[in-house]
Amino acid sequence: MTRTYHTTRRVEFSDTDMAGIVHFASFFRFMEGAEHEFLRSLGLSVVLNWEGMSLGFPRVSASCDFIKPIRFEDVVDIEVRLERVGTKSLTYGFTFRLSDVDVARGQISCVCCRLDPGEHRIESVEIPAGIRARLLGEPALPA
Amino acid sequence: MTRTYHTTRRVEFSDTDMAGIVHFASFFRFMEGAEHEFLRSLGLSVVLNWEGMSLGFPRVSASCDFIKPIRFEDVVDIEVRLERVGTKSLTYGFTFRLSDVDVARGQISCVCCRLDPGEHRIESVEIPAGIRARLLGEPALPA
Amino acid sequence: MTRTYHTTRRVEFSDTDMAGIVHFASFFRFMEGAEHEFLRSLGLSVVLNWEGMSLGFPRVSASCDFIKPIRFEDVVDIEVRLERVGTKSLTYGFTFRLSDVDVARGQISCVCCRLDPGEHRIESVEIPAGIRARLLGEPALPA
Amino acid sequence: MTRTYHTTRRVEFSDTDMAGIVHFASFFRFMEGAEHEFLRSLGLSVVLNWEGMSLGFPRVSASCDFIKPIRFEDVVDIEVRLERVGTKSLTYGFTFRLSDVDVARGQISCVCCRLDPGEHRIESVEIPAGIRARLLGEPALPA
Repeated sequence: MTRTYHTTRRVEFSDTDMAGIVHFASFFRFMEGAEHEFLRSLGLSVVLNWEGMSLGFPRVSASCDFIKPIRFEDVVDIEVRLERVGTKSLTYGFTFRLSDVDVARGQISCVCCRLDPGEHRIESVEIPAGIRARLLGEPALPA
Repeated sequence: MTRTYHTTRRVEFSDTDMAGIVHFASFFRFMEGAEHEFLRSLGLSVVLNWEGMSLGFPRVSASCDFIKPIRFEDVVDIEVRLERVGTKSLTYGFTFRLSDVDVARGQISCVCCRLDPGEHRIESVEIPAGIRARLLGEPALPA
Repeated sequence: MTRTYHTTRRVEFSDTDMAGIVHFASFFRFMEGAEHEFLRSLGLSVVLNWEGMSLGFPRVSASCDFIKPIRFEDVVDIEVRLERVGTKSLTYGFTFRLSDVDVARGQISCVCCRLDPGEHRIESVEIPAGIRARLLGEPALPA
Repeated sequence: MTRTYHTTRRVEFSDTDMAGIVHFASFFRFMEGAEHEFLRSLGLSVVLNWEGMSLGFPRVSASCDFIKPIRFEDVVDIEVRLERVGTKSLTYGFTFRLSDVDVARGQISCVCCRLDPGEHRIESVEIPAGIRARLLGEPALPA
């Protein structure tokens, strides 16, 4: 069963471009913002200190189909779906709607990594069991 | 035969995020910048006044696979390939390389549209023959 | 008497940079977002069709003092003050606070302009009386 | 004597907004990009590993006056002036010109800091003598 989360976002002036519409790269920021809201709703974050490790979720792929343009001050509904929880990776699906009409659909895949920003090291690791349980909505086992 | 164009881009501080690497949404701006350089090299632009019409190329889809992170002050080579010229649409492929190693690969599809930013109207139109000829590297026919 | 408006904003991942803090240019987007919320609270917008004219408020100056760094997921309070309403121009002051501590203070001045994006014309005009009345919180006179 | 550096920058589509001009926050990114080019020309960077410390230059203030709008594909000249070298701080002045006409003027002040992104610590330190010498164009003393 796919976990689903809904949020809304109002388009800002700086999200637009000279064509008078939201710039296509802004949708990727919007997806990420919605993903992080979803994680917060589970008591998680995309940047975690977890049992002594600094964890992050760098993206391995991202895509978006743009169906209808959206504009300054439009308030879009963003649906986040946790489509796949792998051993090390997560895949999210996103649907943007304006007045119940789909305006864009996207996907982001990311990998759980141990980060060490100071030392320029990024190493993929298994998603810790406690994080996986929260993502899947399972009761956490005692540590 | 696919037309290919090469450019380079140096990563700026504002392209990075707190993970110490280039933010994934920045790659979409980089692809667009390279696409526009390619168009300029042909005497074209993504925003054109062409025979009395204001033309633009809003995106219908964009995707990117992120293979290796890139960092502040890295100079990446960006290869632009015009992969498909349809009646109304264009598809570009992009490969980002750092020291000859692929670090990201992406794709953007866009549709030729008549723009009227003041009136919130965007209408797809056929790519004018003169623009198509330049994109394909064919000699332009006399008007 | 200065009109004051308060809003909050949660720092997003894409607002940060490799120093692990919010990039300084992001504060200017945050100020603009708060300004526009203030305008919406008055039934106005930074982009208006007003009595047949398309009006906007291009910036003539902007500044910010950065007192303390803010970070991913911080929720800052932003105070907007309408500091001056001139014949053609507006000046806003902004204070960013985190847990009641000032973290940044900024200012934006802008000029009421008639916009014509298609024709590349921007011309300053007097702030229409009806807009001025709303900004100052005065009762609007009958048209 | 003020050190001066010149560079140029072509406006990208993603730098613009729905008013058809460069968004005001983009000028701050442009200033920073020019500052970093200046530093690279001296063999320095805004992010330095210097004698075992990780140094950065977080901003303490930034301002810009916007004189004339600039647009997509405009190529602006950016003049960088190192206006003040304090014990711990630097102040840069910037002038943007289009066809020899001033279009914007700005200023950025920053403080030399020891960074530790992983631990959320930022502490101001004296600008190391070797960096100061390069900034001022003085011959470096033997270490």
